[in-house]
Amino acid sequence: MDQQSAKRESGGKRIEGVMAEIRSRIAARGLVPGSRLPSVRAFAKTMQVSPSTVVEAYERLAGEGLIRSRPGSGFYVSSPLAPLTLSEIGPKLDRAIDPLWVYRQSLEDAPELLKPGCGWLPASWMPQVAIRKALRAISRGEGRVLVDYGTPLGLPQLRQLLSRRMGERGIAAAPDHIILTESGTQAIDLLCRFLIEPGDGVLVDDPCYFNFHALLRAHRANAIGVPMTPSGPDIEAFERAIDEHRPRLYITNSSIHNPTGATCSPVVAHRLLKLAERAGLTIIEDDIFADLEHEPAPRLAAFDGLERVVHIGSFSKTLSASVRCGFIAARADWIEPLTDLKMATSIGGGRLSSELILLLLKDGSYRKHLDALRVRLSRAMDETAARLAPLGITPWIRPQAGMFVWCKLPDGIDAADIAQACLADNVVLAPGNAFSLSQTARGFLRFNVAQSDDPRIFRSLERALKNAARSPGLLTGNR
Amino acid sequence: MDQQSAKRESGGKRIEGVMAEIRSRIAARGLVPGSRLPSVRAFAKTMQVSPSTVVEAYERLAGEGLIRSRPGSGFYVSSPLAPLTLSEIGPKLDRAIDPLWVYRQSLEDAPELLKPGCGWLPASWMPQVAIRKALRAISRGEGRVLVDYGTPLGLPQLRQLLSRRMGERGIAAAPDHIILTESGTQAIDLLCRFLIEPGDGVLVDDPCYFNFHALLRAHRANAIGVPMTPSGPDIEAFERAIDEHRPRLYITNSSIHNPTGATCSPVVAHRLLKLAERAGLTIIEDDIFADLEHEPAPRLAAFDGLERVVHIGSFSKTLSASVRCGFIAARADWIEPLTDLKMATSIGGGRLSSELILLLLKDGSYRKHLDALRVRLSRAMDETAARLAPLGITPWIRPQAGMFVWCKLPDGIDAADIAQACLADNVVLAPGNAFSLSQTARGFLRFNVAQSDDPRIFRSLERALKNAARSPGLLTGNR
Repeated sequence: MDQQSAKRESGGKRIEGVMAEIRSRIAARGLVPGSRLPSVRAFAKTMQVSPSTVVEAYERLAGEGLIRSRPGSGFYVSSPLAPLTLSEIGPKLDRAIDPLWVYRQSLEDAPELLKPGCGWLPASWMPQVAIRKALRAISRGEGRVLVDYGTPLGLPQLRQLLSRRMGERGIAAAPDHIILTESGTQAIDLLCRFLIEPGDGVLVDDPCYFNFHALLRAHRANAIGVPMTPSGPDIEAFERAIDEHRPRLYITNSSIHNPTGATCSPVVAHRLLKLAERAGLTIIEDDIFADLEHEPAPRLAAFDGLERVVHIGSFSKTLSASVRCGFIAARADWIEPLTDLKMATSIGGGRLSSELILLLLKDGSYRKHLDALRVRLSRAMDETAARLAPLGITPWIRPQAGMFVWCKLPDGIDAADIAQACLADNVVLAPGNAFSLSQTARGFLRFNVAQSDDPRIFRSLERALKNAARSPGLLTGNR
Repeated sequence: MDQQSAKRESGGKRIEGVMAEIRSRIAARGLVPGSRLPSVRAFAKTMQVSPSTVVEAYERLAGEGLIRSRPGSGFYVSSPLAPLTLSEIGPKLDRAIDPLWVYRQSLEDAPELLKPGCGWLPASWMPQVAIRKALRAISRGEGRVLVDYGTPLGLPQLRQLLSRRMGERGIAAAPDHIILTESGTQAIDLLCRFLIEPGDGVLVDDPCYFNFHALLRAHRANAIGVPMTPSGPDIEAFERAIDEHRPRLYITNSSIHNPTGATCSPVVAHRLLKLAERAGLTIIEDDIFADLEHEPAPRLAAFDGLERVVHIGSFSKTLSASVRCGFIAARADWIEPLTDLKMATSIGGGRLSSELILLLLKDGSYRKHLDALRVRLSRAMDETAARLAPLGITPWIRPQAGMFVWCKLPDGIDAADIAQACLADNVVLAPGNAFSLSQTARGFLRFNVAQSDDPRIFRSLERALKNAARSPGLLTGNR
């Protein structure tokens, strides 16, 4: 062995020694998730090695995912189960296009922001008068409603009503096969806990609601994207993904798909179900936009009879996001273990929220609100499209209903650049890649037509597009 | 090889063949969780083996936990992540003493039931007038409160107020280090997701709140019991458990412990924290009964400064279980990942609930309610003890405050028998072993003093005790 390779080898051993020490501190919980590692200089002294050895050891541990570097502030122990922000998963994105950051911004009370990229209706579009009336009714009502826990499955009268409403869409779900949850998201989370193990494959649409990515990461599932077409997921790609990955689960919106507005055609629905059956795949049909439809589209849960399909809903998008209430309709034999799981992990299903929703559904005010809302959304959809057209921004499809329109930017323009430029004008956009697992939607933006009536949005877009077209090198950089 | 051993071997191979076929069907999701396995007779025909071979194969698979038998209805595929009911974990218990079943019963709207075993106050003890008033105020208030999502951390004014209230107990938690959740249980669940991996050791008090067992099972953690003493956990047993199991987490109520009513002494608190530090252990201090204390006891989070201790609270037990609101106070660097995790899995933190709680805390009605409640509970505690004394049921300790008194039955009497007998009289009791991981609390019952004022409870207890004393063989059977 020559001197140099001997030196290299002992250098390698020193690096491994430093790595082993950090690993054992983490294993012994001397370093807990989120805690900062010793500084390079200090740890070099402790271990009696050179700073560059510590740097190399830390970088290798970061490569393994055991620790994370935060630029300018050192290294930290990774949290085992916390979902990473998308900027850490995919290519390096900046805040303006990190979907979780955009999401959080949209949720902050920041009246100066315009939010064509956000995922819900403006407060003024929601049935406030009816909610005020329902609150007053509850304030005069039975005392137990105000203070007691809900029943394990959730308010029986609301489950009865939900069962009837699903029946109208052809979904046969008895009240006892419905569980109330805090939200649609919590419903899907419960199902993931119940159905999948870390490492299991889960199909999602590409693009899809971006929180599915975060949710699946929290479950350490292996998310697999299936390209979306105007009539549902690309069925050949779906079949290939099944053969290749043997996924356990597919999560989708079969109607008024978020973000594309697509609706699954009967043919695609039928093929999907056949493939799901062959592969033993469970489908979560997240149907939180159902009530915005003009004509009910065919539902997977209706074709399937809740055999392989679990049906999810909530009222956050159509009634109130402040009053938390979602639901699961599932096969009979899953209800008991799902309820146990709900009780163990959240108790869940607030009684006050359920009673409020029940009142609003019962007295007809929700139905009236929906009738007006559909018309208003349809008009806003046309207006938004008309305002975007002169900018060269064109709808991928004209959705049948709903609040989203998925739009193609002029060729060569990167939505991330536009989002970044518009953010400087206090306009929060939703760039396509926030929804795309394969990061193939850089030419798209999702517009919420109910949040797109301010002319400043379009002026900001126009400026950003002009600048992007003028100096593409500057803005797109070497991404 | 003689003929008989050859036969045995081929019998063994046939059993393995059946097992392999079921395993592969489950792996391929032809059999999904909860689905019924083919009947013994039918599958014997399919596999061309004898029914006894199938029975043996099914029983072995059940032994492995892959499938479960339901008496009288065959075998079913196990759910990977659903917590089993305690009757499936521990020794065979019947429904009357399965804590999850008792819990569910208590939650059902069943006015005929008397519930000295339940875990919350009667509706009439809760501040209904104040809640009605707050509901009316909200019905007249800002529209966004009624319909919009909450901010990611949760209502800023409520977090400020919680920060001040914690400050009064010596816990320094800035508003930005507080996250609102749906409930105390959801808070602990989030922390478990963040901090532990399947198989990790988690210390709990023995006895402890029984839902901790279910929650930890849902996380597939290895729960380890530490015996409780009147001044907190047995510190030597705690140390031994640390050395033996290297746990990651300890979940406790350091004051007004559920079910025993014990309060951690300053000496024990100090030793606990020293041991936790040495072992790199995180402590979740679940403090949902804090507001019932007459004099604030020392809090682990106060000694520790939220370094290793996470502080949890909610208003379900003291204000309303219908208005869902819990919170986490944690170290600064955990707030962001915990918030990401909350958003990904539930969005969470309903705005309406938070605003209601804020109003009740702000206008002084909560404080007045608590003052009256403490006196009332203290009186009920004495009355319950006085009614139990003639039956030979004696408090383990006289708790400083709270709604629970942990009582020892006369020697030789099994609480499960008493619970079973009283259930026939529509009296739902909480037998000790429902709270005990080691199943060493068969001589105990937990009484909720606020739910124990009906004379029928004590008449039913008296009868059950007499019968148990008269014919112990009959009731305790061969358990």
